[in-house]
Amino acid sequence: MQSIGKTCFTAMFALLATMSATASAAAPSAKPLTTSDVLDNSQSSDWRTPNAVDLLILTLDDDDGARVVMELAPAFAPQHADNLRALAREHYFDGLAIMRVQENYVVQWGDPDGDKREVRTAKRTLPGEFFRSASGLNFSALPDADVYAPEVGYVDGFPAARDRQRGQAWLAHCYAALGVGRAMGADSGGGTELYVVIGHAPRHLDRNITLAGRVLQGMEHLSALPRGTGTLGFYEKPEQYVKIRSLRLAADLPESERVALQVLRTDTATWKAYVETRRFRRDAWFIEPTGHADVCNVGVPVRAAP
Amino acid sequence: MQSIGKTCFTAMFALLATMSATASAAAPSAKPLTTSDVLDNSQSSDWRTPNAVDLLILTLDDDDGARVVMELAPAFAPQHADNLRALAREHYFDGLAIMRVQENYVVQWGDPDGDKREVRTAKRTLPGEFFRSASGLNFSALPDADVYAPEVGYVDGFPAARDRQRGQAWLAHCYAALGVGRAMGADSGGGTELYVVIGHAPRHLDRNITLAGRVLQGMEHLSALPRGTGTLGFYEKPEQYVKIRSLRLAADLPESERVALQVLRTDTATWKAYVETRRFRRDAWFIEPTGHADVCNVGVPVRAAP
Repeated sequence: MQSIGKTCFTAMFALLATMSATASAAAPSAKPLTTSDVLDNSQSSDWRTPNAVDLLILTLDDDDGARVVMELAPAFAPQHADNLRALAREHYFDGLAIMRVQENYVVQWGDPDGDKREVRTAKRTLPGEFFRSASGLNFSALPDADVYAPEVGYVDGFPAARDRQRGQAWLAHCYAALGVGRAMGADSGGGTELYVVIGHAPRHLDRNITLAGRVLQGMEHLSALPRGTGTLGFYEKPEQYVKIRSLRLAADLPESERVALQVLRTDTATWKAYVETRRFRRDAWFIEPTGHADVCNVGVPVRAAP
Repeated sequence: MQSIGKTCFTAMFALLATMSATASAAAPSAKPLTTSDVLDNSQSSDWRTPNAVDLLILTLDDDDGARVVMELAPAFAPQHADNLRALAREHYFDGLAIMRVQENYVVQWGDPDGDKREVRTAKRTLPGEFFRSASGLNFSALPDADVYAPEVGYVDGFPAARDRQRGQAWLAHCYAALGVGRAMGADSGGGTELYVVIGHAPRHLDRNITLAGRVLQGMEHLSALPRGTGTLGFYEKPEQYVKIRSLRLAADLPESERVALQVLRTDTATWKAYVETRRFRRDAWFIEPTGHADVCNVGVPVRAAP
């Protein structure tokens, strides 16, 4: 009844969620804009290039040397950003491993021998940076409400929340968030154990643990890893560990090994238009655009630098 | 500084999200209950056994014959539930394949040859069952608000939403939801292409496409599949397809091949207590229990029948 071509085509509409600026002619101006329209019409000034000192590149020790690119959020976790830079610079994670992949939750890496590896210039632990002052941030509020916070939005591309009454702002635990594992004490983490969210947003962790950034590229190298069968998704045998070849700061790599990525700015008219296309899906397939979007379901587009 | 044992232990608290009733002594009554406490204290009457005519078992054609168990939701999609039973009974999916795994979105299966496979007793298409009447449902409302709907909660273990003004109720696109792919028309799907949500809840699909159930067991066999590199996560080469050995109704299997699962009832005092432990995380690790939970972040526990 349906050709595969047609099936694929309609599936595009059926389940459109791609964040990339895929080819698509701009809609006639009579029609409301779609997400693709907005991205296609974006100007170079709508995009920002992350600082090389804020980009971490995790390279797995597999045949392809799969790479995961993360952006640090020093505006929210300045001490942890500094410490992660220090850990990267002393090659702390080289040869360590991903030890935990918990279904619908997190991928976690660190020292399988239990933090035995020496830290040199980096610190082992830091005070938690669970939230910060709400002032002094370029906060683009989302018009929709949130289940967990009085207000949500985006700061420099990072999904975030704000409580003006308390005067606090914090990063939200959305898919792809990069966090810093800790033990019982608020100050018991420092960055030698890191995790990335791979399931539905565990927002109950917000303000309980430090988020230090988010993955910009290569999530599929983490999210498609075999789930650990031990308690909480820990791998039960050392041979199951996913070895880490290196974790480096882009600034420390030769130009040829860096990644040239751009992130859609979240403080522009284009951003506002983009958000509206996520709140009201205007692709022909949609029958009932919801008119709402949750902070973790908007998606901040990332592209290869043109 | 931390032994691996300690690290694992504390990580348990750090990132507790397991839905299973894992061993854990009940807390002294002075302390607020944790999720484990509530499950440990549950009675057999707090659990229900899904009907064998509502359980679909997808068996992948890999070495292990990995199985994914799904429960149909005839209260919300009666015609699609019937049609999926008919498709299972005519062995429609045997030898077909998973053709699409889109990062942070869906896994989709069907006929790679584009619905060429004949249907016999089943129907190729059906009118969409995107929502139903809000009345006549055993709806356990969640006390928290929702970004997308006036009210959310659970019906027989399925995350659902309700709009009393419109008199509508519908299933929510949470992680593990089972949906029925469609083309442009609201009546263009029928069940020959199915998808399961593997990422952050794509709630913008609510009321735009038919949800027919949810995965109870075996999500990891779908969520850890390699992502497709084609548009929208389609596999680009036939050799990448993940072959399906069979999709059967549990009722049609010999007793030895069935699965004995139980789902926590969502209309009991235990359920209400469970939800409170998800809204207010009382495990010692938490510093700031949020006091909120979104409908896709509560989790309806599933266990092996004792």
